[in-house]
Amino acid sequence: MLSMIFNKSALWLGRVIVGVLLLTVVGLVIRFFYVAFSDPTVDAVHQRAKLEYLTTMPQISNNAPNIIVIFFDDLGWGDLSSYGNRLIETPEIDQVAQEGLLMTNFYSASPVCTPSRAALLTGRFPPRTRTDRHVYFPTDSTMGTLRKMLGWANALPKEEITIAEVMKHAGYRTGMIGKWHLGDHKGYLPNDFGFESFFGLHFSNDQYPLNLYRNKEVLIQDRREGGLFASERDELQPLPGQGVDQRQLTEMYTQEAIEFVESTAGNPFFLYLAHSFPHVPHYSSDEFANTSRGGTYGDVIEDLDRSTGQLMRALDRLGLSDNTIVLITSDNGADYNGSPGYLRGRKGQTLEGGQRVPMIVRWPGRVESGRVTDAMAMNIDIFPTLLQASGLTLPKDRVIDGRDLSGLLQGKSDSPHAFLYYFPVIQTLPDAIRNSEFKLTEDTGDFGRSRMHLSHLDGDTEAHDVKNLFAEEAASLMQALQFKQNEITDNPRGWITPGARRGDP
Amino acid sequence: MLSMIFNKSALWLGRVIVGVLLLTVVGLVIRFFYVAFSDPTVDAVHQRAKLEYLTTMPQISNNAPNIIVIFFDDLGWGDLSSYGNRLIETPEIDQVAQEGLLMTNFYSASPVCTPSRAALLTGRFPPRTRTDRHVYFPTDSTMGTLRKMLGWANALPKEEITIAEVMKHAGYRTGMIGKWHLGDHKGYLPNDFGFESFFGLHFSNDQYPLNLYRNKEVLIQDRREGGLFASERDELQPLPGQGVDQRQLTEMYTQEAIEFVESTAGNPFFLYLAHSFPHVPHYSSDEFANTSRGGTYGDVIEDLDRSTGQLMRALDRLGLSDNTIVLITSDNGADYNGSPGYLRGRKGQTLEGGQRVPMIVRWPGRVESGRVTDAMAMNIDIFPTLLQASGLTLPKDRVIDGRDLSGLLQGKSDSPHAFLYYFPVIQTLPDAIRNSEFKLTEDTGDFGRSRMHLSHLDGDTEAHDVKNLFAEEAASLMQALQFKQNEITDNPRGWITPGARRGDP
Repeated sequence: MLSMIFNKSALWLGRVIVGVLLLTVVGLVIRFFYVAFSDPTVDAVHQRAKLEYLTTMPQISNNAPNIIVIFFDDLGWGDLSSYGNRLIETPEIDQVAQEGLLMTNFYSASPVCTPSRAALLTGRFPPRTRTDRHVYFPTDSTMGTLRKMLGWANALPKEEITIAEVMKHAGYRTGMIGKWHLGDHKGYLPNDFGFESFFGLHFSNDQYPLNLYRNKEVLIQDRREGGLFASERDELQPLPGQGVDQRQLTEMYTQEAIEFVESTAGNPFFLYLAHSFPHVPHYSSDEFANTSRGGTYGDVIEDLDRSTGQLMRALDRLGLSDNTIVLITSDNGADYNGSPGYLRGRKGQTLEGGQRVPMIVRWPGRVESGRVTDAMAMNIDIFPTLLQASGLTLPKDRVIDGRDLSGLLQGKSDSPHAFLYYFPVIQTLPDAIRNSEFKLTEDTGDFGRSRMHLSHLDGDTEAHDVKNLFAEEAASLMQALQFKQNEITDNPRGWITPGARRGDP
Repeated sequence: MLSMIFNKSALWLGRVIVGVLLLTVVGLVIRFFYVAFSDPTVDAVHQRAKLEYLTTMPQISNNAPNIIVIFFDDLGWGDLSSYGNRLIETPEIDQVAQEGLLMTNFYSASPVCTPSRAALLTGRFPPRTRTDRHVYFPTDSTMGTLRKMLGWANALPKEEITIAEVMKHAGYRTGMIGKWHLGDHKGYLPNDFGFESFFGLHFSNDQYPLNLYRNKEVLIQDRREGGLFASERDELQPLPGQGVDQRQLTEMYTQEAIEFVESTAGNPFFLYLAHSFPHVPHYSSDEFANTSRGGTYGDVIEDLDRSTGQLMRALDRLGLSDNTIVLITSDNGADYNGSPGYLRGRKGQTLEGGQRVPMIVRWPGRVESGRVTDAMAMNIDIFPTLLQASGLTLPKDRVIDGRDLSGLLQGKSDSPHAFLYYFPVIQTLPDAIRNSEFKLTEDTGDFGRSRMHLSHLDGDTEAHDVKNLFAEEAASLMQALQFKQNEITDNPRGWITPGARRGDP
């Protein structure tokens, strides 16, 4: 009797489990093929609008400003001596700040790599560019396949417009050096998105395989053994002859950058130098090993600082410094190592330390030297600001979330933003908002202890919730946050159809 | 054919699963009864040694110093104005600091409640007192039952010796007011561990049921509805008439403390005032609601500050201030709300912000007023320090991990510790160690990014790993940490058998 009950219940339980497993596998296989062959990353309407926008781009004059964007990976708000670091010394970057503007309230559009890079290049929030699902992974890796099965994008959609495409069509020479992290297959590489030349990595320096490319060709192949879960293993430094020696990355990038600048021969250029460091694992040039008071991490930063100085001196040598806009910033806040300064939180979090990053702007003749501003801005602003600097207009078929910072940079006006929004990882909607004084954060679930939280950003580091004292400000920020959330829910990609309106509440 | 394979595989899968489930249930039931009836919390040998130690305790003289330990719950290192908070005002506590010693490198023995309280009362590390498995839960709750099934202690073992027991047997009047969190059943209550009087809660103010006790009798019963997972629900504030009104807790405790002090009538006393706040949920007296610039959390702290002032003035009134040692500290660092100051980390973490807490010592005639020290100490030191202050000797059958701070407090010597150890939650062994200058942390797994990490505590906030620059210091700290880990693995309870040795490496 007991054995009959045992067998009967076992049979039914087993049937249910085996049935569900079978159905799941069949469903995932169907979905996989559907996703693989339907290429959901192309929106034909906006792809046509993009081509029309680019091909009718006005041409810049020959004395248009050159542009260099130096984009560090995981550099924290407190990692530079000009931002208060007491152990790491960054005299070269500090010098650029001395000659330009240092921003204390500048943000990346995301606390992680991929969405922040997409935002920088397109001027748009993470859900607009389908980068709202964390970071991209190598197509053939376990994580890449999983992303595909889930229907998550794993490359920047083709119809997105990057600064490089705009600049190239306007007559700039465009070059990218460093980490891409916006796709790794045909049609989705830097050269496919407006960069005439590319030298660097498709992914972070802790992802596998770590191939070094020149344009679309592999220059140094990763010959290490892979494996099912080898897509992100930061201990996996190649042995000699097995692949890229990470100790040489910063120097190789710097050399390439200098050569790119030298080779422009009087044509205005746009250079996107996206350093692989200080992302883990940490490797500096040999000369910097064990020299910084900030430890190995400090060695890496000081190596990057030298790189910056070398590039600046190349500009001087070529007589280009006076007509070159230099932007120095980071894709998100400090990771486990590195310093967020006195800010709360780190990479991956919408707390200030996860997204507030250094931003230094040198633009001789337009940006006063030695100025510091606490006006708020975000890396989505770089796209419209640089287009404005070059006299180019924005596309009209899509929302550009960023704002032109020209007035702010020139000291003529305050921040163009009434609000900034914070987009958490693996979520489509922002969970926090700030204005010039306060930041409102929704219940983020941390330790089961977080609640809706209003921070007074001036004089506090998100330690004290003051919504009881500033109930009106909290309500008004919540209203603005919900307005944006609804707007993004209704139109995540931010497409503009004729007659519709755009913009802040 | 296919259906036969389906049924066969379903049957076997089901049999395995049902079989494993049945065996697990039977095993857990057997273990439950074994644990329930074997009472593993009593060690007969050391219970006898404890009784012998206590019953042969020398008697204190009538002018022995009174002792008050004010123990806040989750008060962060940066929550008091004397510790740098810029929004919350704590003039009363700051005044006590002005009249005594403020310690900037004082630690709780654990980043969570229960083990820290056990350490304070016994002078011993978490594994010694079987509090190394996070915090205790109500016996009948789901979590309490789970703890029992896992064989985890859920009450301070009977053979542990608390300061209260020592003091009581030496002739002190002993009283406890506030949160116990070291057991909730017969034989394991404050009155069973040396406190002649008790007024307060058995658990944190977010645990269920929230009964208020006077000695062993329920004074105010929690009449809210419970449920399977109701053991910790911080939103669950009782409606009027349903239970304790948390807004009155601080004031009730304060009133009780003043009455206890008044009632001693010239007999030396030991008072352990373990406030329930600023643990979540946050309630202040009505007069403080919405008054602090630090928000609701600030209201709670400023209410606690007034409480401290009221108690200090009662001492003045009774002429007791000159002969009373006052200690003010916290059981762990700031939780999600509250401020760790510039320290990294919060409650629950062995980072500095999780365990470094305020410590203020007022001891007229012995401790110089207005002094600040950065010498390191931990709440395990309170037991041996207070025994020394009263001329009492330590038990000899067990390791007391704390050290006598008398010399440090009197400015005659530096910290008595060569090292402090950090015990993470739900682990038996320490994962970090510090000396006067450096802190070494093992790979803690955070975000998959942490590695063995050496921090220079002077001038850095655990942002920079400098083990490459100070390899010798790192190796020597690792050696000391492993020595302690081995010692605890060999003898977790720290029992001393005649002839064996104790102490630091």
